[in-house]
Amino acid sequence: MSSLRVEGVQGVGELRPGDDLATLLADAFAAQGLPLQDGDVLSIAQKAVSKVEGRELELADVEPSARAREIAGSEDDPRFIELVLRESASIVRRRGAFLVCETHHGHICASAGVDRSNASGPERAILLPVDPDASAHRLRVKLAPRADVAIVITDSFGRPFRRGTTGVALGVAGLAPVVRLAGTLDSAGRRLENTEVHVADAIASTAELVLGQVGGVPAVLLRGLVFAGGEEGAVTGLIPAERDLFRAR
Amino acid sequence: MSSLRVEGVQGVGELRPGDDLATLLADAFAAQGLPLQDGDVLSIAQKAVSKVEGRELELADVEPSARAREIAGSEDDPRFIELVLRESASIVRRRGAFLVCETHHGHICASAGVDRSNASGPERAILLPVDPDASAHRLRVKLAPRADVAIVITDSFGRPFRRGTTGVALGVAGLAPVVRLAGTLDSAGRRLENTEVHVADAIASTAELVLGQVGGVPAVLLRGLVFAGGEEGAVTGLIPAERDLFRAR
Repeated sequence: MSSLRVEGVQGVGELRPGDDLATLLADAFAAQGLPLQDGDVLSIAQKAVSKVEGRELELADVEPSARAREIAGSEDDPRFIELVLRESASIVRRRGAFLVCETHHGHICASAGVDRSNASGPERAILLPVDPDASAHRLRVKLAPRADVAIVITDSFGRPFRRGTTGVALGVAGLAPVVRLAGTLDSAGRRLENTEVHVADAIASTAELVLGQVGGVPAVLLRGLVFAGGEEGAVTGLIPAERDLFRAR
Repeated sequence: MSSLRVEGVQGVGELRPGDDLATLLADAFAAQGLPLQDGDVLSIAQKAVSKVEGRELELADVEPSARAREIAGSEDDPRFIELVLRESASIVRRRGAFLVCETHHGHICASAGVDRSNASGPERAILLPVDPDASAHRLRVKLAPRADVAIVITDSFGRPFRRGTTGVALGVAGLAPVVRLAGTLDSAGRRLENTEVHVADAIASTAELVLGQVGGVPAVLLRGLVFAGGEEGAVTGLIPAERDLFRAR
């Protein structure tokens, strides 16, 4: 594979709970002259998925616990911290009211993915989908009558060592998120040792370049990518805590 | 920006020390109908840069230290470990003979970036460029008479929490590697809080999708990307150890 086309969707308005996201996106791409084709990868922003799944809520409806108030201190809104704690399986690191969390799915990210940016209003927050792999699978099934596409639900996470966010795959359907190159030969005929590539995260980063960070483009089409099929889901791309050199002690 | 084209270069043969990489790549893209244009981003594989800079060597020429022999044990080649130690400013994590290192540039990666894959022969190893930002700058200057292009020298690194490698920017010229979105407004008019995006790493991951891991495609052209100019270099995209939640204790 030596050529790839990446196109952002246009003209999808504000999304609401219950919207048929798959149909909205497929119709929008068709309207801009890009009907979905077999082999396309459709990369969809997490916030778009969360919004149609009703994962946005009013901070006013959240009653903070004593622990949330304690962590928030004077630095942050205890209602927001309460949501972060509810969405977390564990706290991996803490600096004041800033929490790096393991979500119930196993992803590790700031604030367990709870976000006040790009919500529908300033006093609202968006949570990650309950099961992003299941969300990806449903979108793929819904689109199947039109084309056999792979789905990657993307988010932007920070990470250790390097500034800024890059794209990560939160939910995946129809492609193998991690491809093992062990046993393949490099250009000198040498056997590659245990090389694994997180293709789904690379797709997510590609999509984030086009999605931008300021909303308005909820999905990106990648055409021309050669990828391995699979239904493992994004959670198989996570390192178990006990095997992680940066968590196991 | 809602559309991006990503094209791998074709027909560049095996690279040798002293080769004029900038000219080879520009000529090859021109030959495939893609002469470089102002605003293009040229993403170049680290190994291609290292090879033309003479950073490949014979393991037979390396005399391992006592410490390299001790770490290698029966798990790995002490000559390889010796190179890893020489290329490291510090060891961040160790599991047997597997070392996660901070390079002298400040990047954190397995084996300090020393690699036996895609070397010119099985008893050879490739080191990272001595100064990848300077390498990127030289390539950009060399190409300036043809077009005003940004350069991203890419590698594949593993990371905590998530399996597999993704692309990272080792050297950058002509674009700001990290873009701060703080103060910009999201689609709901809410001020984004301290959001930084590592655009150069996202570019590197995009390139890696096309570069593949088995050699043969040393560079990728990205056309259509809107990016901020800058000469900060990739090292400005690193988190200082004392501010890193995963290194400071």
